[in-house]
Amino acid sequence: MSKKVVIVGGVAGGAGTAARLRRLDEQAEIVLLERGDYISFANCGLPYYIGGVITERDKLLVQTEEAMEERFSIDIRVNSEVTKIFRESKEVEVVAGDNVYRENYDYLVLSPGAAPLVPPIPGVDNRNILKLRNMADVDRIKSLILAQKPRKAAVIGGGYVGIEVAENLKHIGADVVVIEAAEQVVGPLDIEMARVVEKVLMDQGIELILKDAVTKFEGQDNIQINLKSGKTIEADMVVLAVGVKPEIKLAKEAGLEIGARGGIRVDEYLKTSDPFIYALGDAVEVKDIVNEQWALIPLAGPANKQARIVADNIAGRKVSFRGSQGTSIIKVFNLTAAATGNNEKLLNLWRIPYLKSYTHSPSHAAYYPGAIPMIVKILFSPGNGKLLGAQVVGKDGVDKRIDVLATAIRMGLTVYDLEELEFAYAPPYSSAKDPVNMAGFTAANMLKGDVRVIHWDELDDLDKNNYILLDVRTDEEYQKGHVEGSVHIPVDSLRKRIKEIPGDQKIIIYCKIGLRGYIAYRILVQHGFDAYNLSGGYDIYQALRY
Amino acid sequence: MSKKVVIVGGVAGGAGTAARLRRLDEQAEIVLLERGDYISFANCGLPYYIGGVITERDKLLVQTEEAMEERFSIDIRVNSEVTKIFRESKEVEVVAGDNVYRENYDYLVLSPGAAPLVPPIPGVDNRNILKLRNMADVDRIKSLILAQKPRKAAVIGGGYVGIEVAENLKHIGADVVVIEAAEQVVGPLDIEMARVVEKVLMDQGIELILKDAVTKFEGQDNIQINLKSGKTIEADMVVLAVGVKPEIKLAKEAGLEIGARGGIRVDEYLKTSDPFIYALGDAVEVKDIVNEQWALIPLAGPANKQARIVADNIAGRKVSFRGSQGTSIIKVFNLTAAATGNNEKLLNLWRIPYLKSYTHSPSHAAYYPGAIPMIVKILFSPGNGKLLGAQVVGKDGVDKRIDVLATAIRMGLTVYDLEELEFAYAPPYSSAKDPVNMAGFTAANMLKGDVRVIHWDELDDLDKNNYILLDVRTDEEYQKGHVEGSVHIPVDSLRKRIKEIPGDQKIIIYCKIGLRGYIAYRILVQHGFDAYNLSGGYDIYQALRY
Ligand SMILES: Cc1cc2nc3c(=O)[nH]c(=O)nc-3n(C[C@H](O)[C@H](O)[C@H](O)COP(=O)(O)OP(=O)(O)OC[C@H]3O[C@@H](n4cnc5c(N)ncnc54)[C@H](O)[C@@H]3O)c2cc1C
Ligand SMILES: Cc1cc2nc3c(=O)[nH]c(=O)nc-3n(C[C@H](O)[C@H](O)[C@H](O)COP(=O)(O)OP(=O)(O)OC[C@H]3O[C@@H](n4cnc5c(N)ncnc54)[C@H](O)[C@@H]3O)c2cc1C
Ligand SMILES: CC(C)(COP(=O)(O)OP(=O)(O)OC[C@H]1O[C@@H](n2cnc3c(N)ncnc32)[C@H](O)[C@@H]1OP(=O)(O)O)[C@@H](O)C(=O)NCCC(=O)NCCS
Ligand SMILES: CC(C)(COP(=O)(O)OP(=O)(O)OC[C@H]1O[C@@H](n2cnc3c(N)ncnc32)[C@H](O)[C@@H]1OP(=O)(O)O)[C@@H](O)C(=O)NCCC(=O)NCCS
Repeated sequence: MSKKVVIVGGVAGGAGTAARLRRLDEQAEIVLLERGDYISFANCGLPYYIGGVITERDKLLVQTEEAMEERFSIDIRVNSEVTKIFRESKEVEVVAGDNVYRENYDYLVLSPGAAPLVPPIPGVDNRNILKLRNMADVDRIKSLILAQKPRKAAVIGGGYVGIEVAENLKHIGADVVVIEAAEQVVGPLDIEMARVVEKVLMDQGIELILKDAVTKFEGQDNIQINLKSGKTIEADMVVLAVGVKPEIKLAKEAGLEIGARGGIRVDEYLKTSDPFIYALGDAVEVKDIVNEQWALIPLAGPANKQARIVADNIAGRKVSFRGSQGTSIIKVFNLTAAATGNNEKLLNLWRIPYLKSYTHSPSHAAYYPGAIPMIVKILFSPGNGKLLGAQVVGKDGVDKRIDVLATAIRMGLTVYDLEELEFAYAPPYSSAKDPVNMAGFTAANMLKGDVRVIHWDELDDLDKNNYILLDVRTDEEYQKGHVEGSVHIPVDSLRKRIKEIPGDQKIIIYCKIGLRGYIAYRILVQHGFDAYNLSGGYDIYQALRY
Repeated sequence: MSKKVVIVGGVAGGAGTAARLRRLDEQAEIVLLERGDYISFANCGLPYYIGGVITERDKLLVQTEEAMEERFSIDIRVNSEVTKIFRESKEVEVVAGDNVYRENYDYLVLSPGAAPLVPPIPGVDNRNILKLRNMADVDRIKSLILAQKPRKAAVIGGGYVGIEVAENLKHIGADVVVIEAAEQVVGPLDIEMARVVEKVLMDQGIELILKDAVTKFEGQDNIQINLKSGKTIEADMVVLAVGVKPEIKLAKEAGLEIGARGGIRVDEYLKTSDPFIYALGDAVEVKDIVNEQWALIPLAGPANKQARIVADNIAGRKVSFRGSQGTSIIKVFNLTAAATGNNEKLLNLWRIPYLKSYTHSPSHAAYYPGAIPMIVKILFSPGNGKLLGAQVVGKDGVDKRIDVLATAIRMGLTVYDLEELEFAYAPPYSSAKDPVNMAGFTAANMLKGDVRVIHWDELDDLDKNNYILLDVRTDEEYQKGHVEGSVHIPVDSLRKRIKEIPGDQKIIIYCKIGLRGYIAYRILVQHGFDAYNLSGGYDIYQALRY
């Protein structure tokens, strides 16, 4: 007997489930219900359409209703909102314009996504204050831009969507200000890595206001944004991008279990607390594979993979979803910033012990044109060296390294494994020691006790009387800028001048990125000194001082 | 007591060992003996210097003698050839110009590399017939180019170095012909993938002669190249790039064990049959981690990693080298081709059962500008789905996918693991289902029996009377070209027109790349047909018919 499967939400999770289910089961009756005008649009492309990077609106429609019906024989109904679930009778209530009806199901799939948060700020209800989730939203933003040619735009929120929107508003010629309540943009990065992003934003002429919150919007076309600090900002348009929250109203009203983080609770088969209802995508909580806690990870990759798994389970296979790791990436003008696994903030939250290591490596062989340094930060377990998280920021080759590191984290690899990975090397692509190998070497050296490091965030807390700061860079580098109070001996003169260094004090060595510091460390320690190397060097130390 | 370590060969393996050893052991006496004029030059950059992509000769000198001595306190002697090993007395004979002397050692390290093969072809001894291994070679080629402005250049050998040189000779304006004895260029690729490379070479105006060998060189400045086929080619200069062979003379004469493939035999600690002699790099045989046989894998990544391991072992740590997988990559004009693990040729040689799968995927989200398709071929075990090899060819993002696949192979992952890997997705970088995920899905579908595939190389052998070839592409695509004798029903009309397909015959479905073919397969099989899908579709089938 053929199954009837009703799917709520027609985009990443919903449409993906429908397509896979049809491939597995030619007989199933599949009804796809979408409240909006479109199924299968490219949410992730929306910011780029605002800026004209994506020029044709049609390109955002990955699958149209008609094409999807033709290919997959799915009963697709747009402008159809599911407003209630009747679990006992296995029906849903559908509101399609004036038409309200019930649709029965054998299995129900919930992929309603997450809605942009709209904070209850006075004055937020203004047609020039917009959010960005779907085609209707982007159409609204586009027509506002067309009609009013905004000179000054404010983006509230410096997360992925906020920053992408800010860049794209800049592309259309507006003056842009980003207002972020936290002390940094792009939350998945730790602060020192985020600083690199912030610098690029400012260099590109975007105004950045951190650690400040909107208290009130005033005016209509010319909006005055009042901030907690007392500052006020004027703007012709505002985009709210302060995060998203799972669409759980339906699930909650139906009595399905909701997790502590506010998402629908599912088991490893993506089944809700009702055995006939599956849920996936931005609306559900997933296991964070690093800290093993429930988490909200609203990303398209996981949603699409979950879609296949939900379809498999409904088709009678038993397939489980192991959890997410939050691998994410953002283009910020000519910079790329990416993260996977847990950052320090998360590891601290869950009290997971970790070590960290920074390396700067060229995107490819330094002698081949176009090599540009990237910063790789890895977080790993002090015990066995298991990789816990990674962040990479740079201008080229960042996506490659984060994907390798994401693979490593997913598969439970250690920093020792990173040492031996064999990457494709020719001068245009990498170095004989790839940045990921380098990260592995450097971290393994820490674990093996071959180097003791100190971090940028520890330095300022130390009592300056208890150590000597040794700058081992060249004369030229030293003259251009150095940490106050540092002693200067270039690494290449260290053996000759070693007598100049007092043997009874702690020596903290630094260079530009940590490499020469490490070499100096090896020399000093083997000569009996009590030394430390500043991980990531002067560059990371300075990143926080822009 | 401090050790004395003598190292033969001052480039990737040798200099790398010296640097690491110094870091580990400040007291060791380290003598680095290099027969040529330079240590630490960028072998891999040489082809690009010929073409002027790398403009400054100095850039090729990654480390100079002076800089390396200063930083690492190493006794470096260039123009010093080691001509004999006296194992009993633990000495080597060094010839430095007129000066011949003995140097004793506690440990000896051999990193002499591999020498370009010079086949014994009549006339090969000609100053306009050159090879490319080191600075002297590249200087010779550069001055020949400067002096004689060659109009026509021939490259003998279509491997990595041959193709890189061919491209660079083209950059300087020469007409270039590549002559290759095998039936394809770039051996690490299988033939259908190599075809893509060959097409690019030809499109760029490089003449390609395959399956033909040089029998004789005639003339001096104007060289006539006679081929086995009877053809003759004229050229002003010839570069020989027909492969390399390990430099084992020293080791052999000293009675060290040599392997069947002609490289120095080392154990997992990179120790030769003499416990005081280590060897590494292009000169040694390594375990191929996929087929577990000894192999020659002359690549810089492994050499550099082995260098660290040799140094570690000499410093008294016990560190092993697990083997190589031959991860390699080449830029061919605007194309990138890469391979890792074993190809079909190797798997067949070692009689390792395998399945293969082809997928074409855009380099990033198709709706974001600049997405270009790449072909991903994976080879995997029919039993557990363990990945055995991968090849990727395309214009963008190839290096990223091969590095992820190389990581997967190194860590023993299966195609099921590829399905769940969580990559960094934003439209400029990838798709919600990354090409590596897609390769995993498609391969897993084969293993699970969700699709039965047929390959391009099986099609021509089938009896045409025993099956129907079904083209499921659009009318437009079909009209532009199709396999002769195929029946045409677009996938989106298949359900409607299913009655047109005879139920008693085997149906071989194809589309452009295999995706729609797979969808059609799922429809047909669930309607009771005996179907197969052409893996990689018409595109792979056609690749062999350029
Ligand atoms: C501007 C923007 C940029 C993004 N960029 C990226 C990126 O670069 N990388 C990345 O990984 N992720 C990105 N994302 C996130 C990604 O789009 C989501 O993770 C993904 O779409 C989640 O899929 P989903 O099926 O859970 O929800 P959605 O794709 O949001 O689909 C849910 C659908 O359900 C419908 N719906 C909800 N309730 C009902 C109901 N009761 N009845 C009927 N229909 C209903 C909604 O109208 C909606 O269309 C971005 C998101 C946005 C908004
Ligand atoms: C043109 C070219 C392009 C390449 N491109 C790439 C690439 O893109 N990617 C990649 O991974 N690999 C590439 N390689 C290969 C890579 O360079 C080698 O794998 C690597 O250099 C091997 O290191 P090695 O130490 O074993 O040998 P080498 O780096 O060759 O060093 C050996 C040294 O030993 C010296 N020597 C030999 N015998 C003696 C002796 N008896 N006494 C004293 N000195 C001696 C030699 O003069 C030589 O300088 C390329 C090689 C060439 C030639
Ligand atoms: C497009 C959409 C409807 C999904 O459709 P889909 O058919 O499942 O997905 P794809 O077109 O990616 O095709 C993947 C299928 O083709 C198969 N496939 C891919 N390449 C193949 C090839 N060369 N040969 C054979 N099969 C192939 C895969 O195995 C997979 O099938 P499976 O899931 O049964 O294993 C859904 O992803 C969607 O709505 N996307 C837009 C919204 C969105 O994702 N937003 C967030 C990102 S912007
Ligand atoms: C350059 C050469 C001498 C090697 O020198 P090296 O000092 O070992 O190598 P690198 O400069 O890459 O530095 C790597 C070291 O710095 C450490 N390091 C790198 N970045 C670091 C950072 N930010 N902080 C601390 N340490 C760092 C690594 O851990 C490694 O040390 P280890 O091996 O003790 O763990 C040798 O590779 C060579 O001769 N190369 C040219 C020839 C060649 O490779 N040819 C083939 C390719 S073209």
